Amino acid sequence: MYIKTKRNIGEEEKNEILKFISANRLGNIIKEEKDYYRIGIIGNTSNVDLDILLSFAGVDEIVPIGKSYKFVSREFQPQDSVIDIKGRKIGGGNFLMMAGPCAIENRESIFKIAKAVKDSGAQVLRGGAFKPRTSPYDFQGLGEDGLKYMREAADKYDLLVVTEVMDSNDIPLIEKYADIFQVGARNMQNFSLLKALGKSNKPVLLKRGLSATIREFLMAAEYIVAYGNENVILCERGIRTFETMTRNTVDINAIPLIKEKSHLPIIIDASHGTGRRTLVQPVTMAGIIAGADGAMVEVHENPECACSDGMQSLHFDEFDRLMKNIDKLLVFRKEIV
Amino acid sequence: MYIKTKRNIGEEEKNEILKFISANRLGNIIKEEKDYYRIGIIGNTSNVDLDILLSFAGVDEIVPIGKSYKFVSREFQPQDSVIDIKGRKIGGGNFLMMAGPCAIENRESIFKIAKAVKDSGAQVLRGGAFKPRTSPYDFQGLGEDGLKYMREAADKYDLLVVTEVMDSNDIPLIEKYADIFQVGARNMQNFSLLKALGKSNKPVLLKRGLSATIREFLMAAEYIVAYGNENVILCERGIRTFETMTRNTVDINAIPLIKEKSHLPIIIDASHGTGRRTLVQPVTMAGIIAGADGAMVEVHENPECACSDGMQSLHFDEFDRLMKNIDKLLVFRKEIV
Amino acid sequence: MYIKTKRNIGEEEKNEILKFISANRLGNIIKEEKDYYRIGIIGNTSNVDLDILLSFAGVDEIVPIGKSYKFVSREFQPQDSVIDIKGRKIGGGNFLMMAGPCAIENRESIFKIAKAVKDSGAQVLRGGAFKPRTSPYDFQGLGEDGLKYMREAADKYDLLVVTEVMDSNDIPLIEKYADIFQVGARNMQNFSLLKALGKSNKPVLLKRGLSATIREFLMAAEYIVAYGNENVILCERGIRTFETMTRNTVDINAIPLIKEKSHLPIIIDASHGTGRRTLVQPVTMAGIIAGADGAMVEVHENPECACSDGMQSLHFDEFDRLMKNIDKLLVFRKEIV
Amino acid sequence: MYIKTKRNIGEEEKNEILKFISANRLGNIIKEEKDYYRIGIIGNTSNVDLDILLSFAGVDEIVPIGKSYKFVSREFQPQDSVIDIKGRKIGGGNFLMMAGPCAIENRESIFKIAKAVKDSGAQVLRGGAFKPRTSPYDFQGLGEDGLKYMREAADKYDLLVVTEVMDSNDIPLIEKYADIFQVGARNMQNFSLLKALGKSNKPVLLKRGLSATIREFLMAAEYIVAYGNENVILCERGIRTFETMTRNTVDINAIPLIKEKSHLPIIIDASHGTGRRTLVQPVTMAGIIAGADGAMVEVHENPECACSDGMQSLHFDEFDRLMKNIDKLLVFRKEIV
Repeated sequence: MYIKTKRNIGEEEKNEILKFISANRLGNIIKEEKDYYRIGIIGNTSNVDLDILLSFAGVDEIVPIGKSYKFVSREFQPQDSVIDIKGRKIGGGNFLMMAGPCAIENRESIFKIAKAVKDSGAQVLRGGAFKPRTSPYDFQGLGEDGLKYMREAADKYDLLVVTEVMDSNDIPLIEKYADIFQVGARNMQNFSLLKALGKSNKPVLLKRGLSATIREFLMAAEYIVAYGNENVILCERGIRTFETMTRNTVDINAIPLIKEKSHLPIIIDASHGTGRRTLVQPVTMAGIIAGADGAMVEVHENPECACSDGMQSLHFDEFDRLMKNIDKLLVFRKEIV
Repeated sequence: MYIKTKRNIGEEEKNEILKFISANRLGNIIKEEKDYYRIGIIGNTSNVDLDILLSFAGVDEIVPIGKSYKFVSREFQPQDSVIDIKGRKIGGGNFLMMAGPCAIENRESIFKIAKAVKDSGAQVLRGGAFKPRTSPYDFQGLGEDGLKYMREAADKYDLLVVTEVMDSNDIPLIEKYADIFQVGARNMQNFSLLKALGKSNKPVLLKRGLSATIREFLMAAEYIVAYGNENVILCERGIRTFETMTRNTVDINAIPLIKEKSHLPIIIDASHGTGRRTLVQPVTMAGIIAGADGAMVEVHENPECACSDGMQSLHFDEFDRLMKNIDKLLVFRKEIV
Repeated sequence: MYIKTKRNIGEEEKNEILKFISANRLGNIIKEEKDYYRIGIIGNTSNVDLDILLSFAGVDEIVPIGKSYKFVSREFQPQDSVIDIKGRKIGGGNFLMMAGPCAIENRESIFKIAKAVKDSGAQVLRGGAFKPRTSPYDFQGLGEDGLKYMREAADKYDLLVVTEVMDSNDIPLIEKYADIFQVGARNMQNFSLLKALGKSNKPVLLKRGLSATIREFLMAAEYIVAYGNENVILCERGIRTFETMTRNTVDINAIPLIKEKSHLPIIIDASHGTGRRTLVQPVTMAGIIAGADGAMVEVHENPECACSDGMQSLHFDEFDRLMKNIDKLLVFRKEIV
Repeated sequence: MYIKTKRNIGEEEKNEILKFISANRLGNIIKEEKDYYRIGIIGNTSNVDLDILLSFAGVDEIVPIGKSYKFVSREFQPQDSVIDIKGRKIGGGNFLMMAGPCAIENRESIFKIAKAVKDSGAQVLRGGAFKPRTSPYDFQGLGEDGLKYMREAADKYDLLVVTEVMDSNDIPLIEKYADIFQVGARNMQNFSLLKALGKSNKPVLLKRGLSATIREFLMAAEYIVAYGNENVILCERGIRTFETMTRNTVDINAIPLIKEKSHLPIIIDASHGTGRRTLVQPVTMAGIIAGADGAMVEVHENPECACSDGMQSLHFDEFDRLMKNIDKLLVFRKEIV
């Protein structure tokens, strides 16, 4: 639930409310409207007499939130969240393209890829340094070396860095190099990790779990927000179904439905979502026209030789073509009524 | 497999080949190229010595088809199929919009809806006269009366008619009224029905089964083609997954993948694919940008009171808005490189 | 809903009720209890004033049925249905084993198999004469010849015959040879077929659809019952999931759950449910201990050469071993408290 | 791959082999047969010239393992693994029953439950102190207090303790109290956690992920083994499908299939697998007859009031009845041929 304050209240009245909340060992999340605040109350309120708040000078109303996902819902915040990452924005009409290799393979390669994706117009460099691999015998990533290479390449070409974090113990290390933490599909309900990322102040790109319902997906985002970090970017990357001709099944319905239910930005990852190079462009464009605020695409200088996921990585020229199409599409999208 | 003929062969040489095929109790399917033919051989050839054909004057080559779906594949026919229905075309760049109520409820209503969808630009009127209902106690459709009303309404507003056929016994009746037979998702592997429709000469709109793989979907189309009817339009209408917030999960990947593998046209049905009115526009547009050759949408004068599927039917003004957006999208789509 | 009559009513009072029902163009289904009847009313009662019935001499109560599946539910009939097929029974503690080849291949083979399954203790011979095949180019069954061979073999070895019907037009033909109609998974929601079988008086073995929920499964059975045929045997044969190491996923939960919700008998088909010979015995036994009233198993003299489904067919000695284990299991099952 | 040694080799010859392995920074896993050893080589051998080993005095053969899961496969170890936990055994014919509440709620309750499950014959007390909850606002478990209560209760009634670990940071704490670590379904591919548990010497109960294939499940177990801990117990607890009448769908096929492919013990958890109290007994028994080496069941003194998962928890008398039936079933199971 949240408190709707009276209009034009002063700092003192606001602080009185916040003091009450923290005195009851609850958390808060504040949204400033034109002339009032919505103050979300985070935590278990079952033993707290909230009605006392109604006697406070600044309180207008206590509003319940009907959804199980509360502070990520449009019931709590009707307008789109806009997340600002070092000046680049996503959400509320701002589009962000993330591109790069599945895994960082070596210094030279990541520099080449960074240059190529920058030249084509991407804003964020993606790449895995710690790879979640089904087999313990597969390449597990370069670790910190990979992070260093990616940071240097990103800095040279003025790109942001997004990379996966698999363990809360790795947060301090990754935080040194990355601008956005990525939580992979397999960890979407790794609640320890979500809680730890809630305490960070860097944005989190949360990928939908292979068999996560939309409700569970929003609940996972709610964890991060409830623990203190409102900067969550959702990512539809395909779900697991019976279909075997594609790696996953992109749930295109999820994009407009999540935009309807939540104020958080959402991106489309058609590389993992399809697992087939030829499908990356049409499905990315489908995701964007359906409302996605960004996209993530795997790009590699030589996909045929890539350590992992080569079959779904775009060549540089394919990515360049995709970006040209997306540029036009973003203009077109504004004309849709 | 198919026979590639020599260039510029005459009727006689062609007939010699066809005679051989029919003498072996096999069927054929002919594709005319600029200066040669591809002649598909339909049926079980395991006991036939096809090598004899190599000695025929008109035969250049016997080409195996590597896929289990043969004559619907691009291996057999590289260029898009274009299906012409009384002058309206679908496929090969031609787009067809089908709209109307889930079920035909009465004469007045279907006329109102026909006028509305025509005014907004649809070419085909859809509506069920025989309804496949999960419960025997639900409304089962108006039967022949429904077909009559729909035909009259379509004629008045110069629309084509598509309606579902659930039983091969109903083919003669429905053929009298409809321009396109629809095979519903539940009947996608009703092989008796597919075979019977293969003997009709009217186009068939084949909906993907709830849990049909893309391969099975193409094989179902292959049945109709193998039994003699090449005019098959595929329809992606969502598959069954674990997600419960939407009625089905539109498999957006399937659209570009099927366009890659098959020459048949494919349409998107976002009404059944999402089950939610607000998702129909974004998901239909996503399907089109991903390559769909047409779309099917449920429209009702008063969705709140519709006999069935009201929640997913568009109001007239919503459909009109969708059509305006699609018109622009079809122009934009030509610019994609 | 159903009418609970007063105790010890006479024929006249009963007939008065039945006359009212048929006068309103509704159907009925009668269950005799010790000293009263439950009379189910089938059809759309929304325009009928049923309250009039309360004034009838024989009527005690009008009882609504809370489930969407009505006459197959335990709400309507608490005790198990027992279906008697020429003296062999299934349900209410009676177990029936159905075994035989996937498809009937020739006369000699079906006689050999019939002898073998009889010797091991099966009561019903299964075998397909009309095969639902994903590809139009696969073996489609021997048709009526197959039916003849199977009937002769069954008669020689005193077995019942179950075989698949795929089209309502085939019902008269198949009825001549078979004791039980089988509706395959792909046709579970072929409502035309279900209605036509509702008008037959032979038992129907209804297989669960690949992606049918338990509710939809029971609703499909309800179709057959509502159209007049109460002799429905359900069959759990695996559902489609993401798992690829097995052909389907046997939904073992469904067996005790359906026994809880419905009075109809249910059997387990582990051959299709697993698609792997080595799993047939453990999964069949699992189904039986979970409550199945029968089982269906594919058996072939030479599974390695079988026309279809060889990988999942048991050798004669494997089937014999399975039957010995099942015999012991049925004794053990009675000891479970 | 693994090295098959010559027969009756001495310590020196064995050590020479092990020295070579560790000198190449590879791990090993040794299985002692009657008169030889199989020595598995763990890690990336692509840059190592293993052929040198063939010149070693003790080496008979280098045997490749055809599966992606290597050391958990029967190719590496044909006979069943038997895991001994303080004298209680599981695997190779030894059965272990684990029972207790979903979450530990308070000291009194866990003692009551421990007494009840012990009286009925369970060997292991289960209970969550750290709960993975979809919502951040749900009860998250008692933490260390819960562990203490459970340990005391288990000690009083001579039971082992199994409890879930969600984060590698919690391993030292949980190790103090528990005899078996449980990895929950949501963490089955939390590779950081799996690696950390590989370095522990306590057994790990690994639950199958909601949408994990059998191959992925075995690969997750392979992680733990490859990092040094061979004591892995698998748990089939139901997968996510389209069915909604049950919480999950128990994949009964998986039990005999995993027993065929792997030497590890596997248990059945029908409480999570069904989500319905009435199904727990039949599905547990089905799992056991299909080959399970143990079972896990939720038991609560007052399921209706349980903090979580009450609907699927057994009452004490229901559990007692189940145990009596299982005792008889284990005797019966030995008679199956």
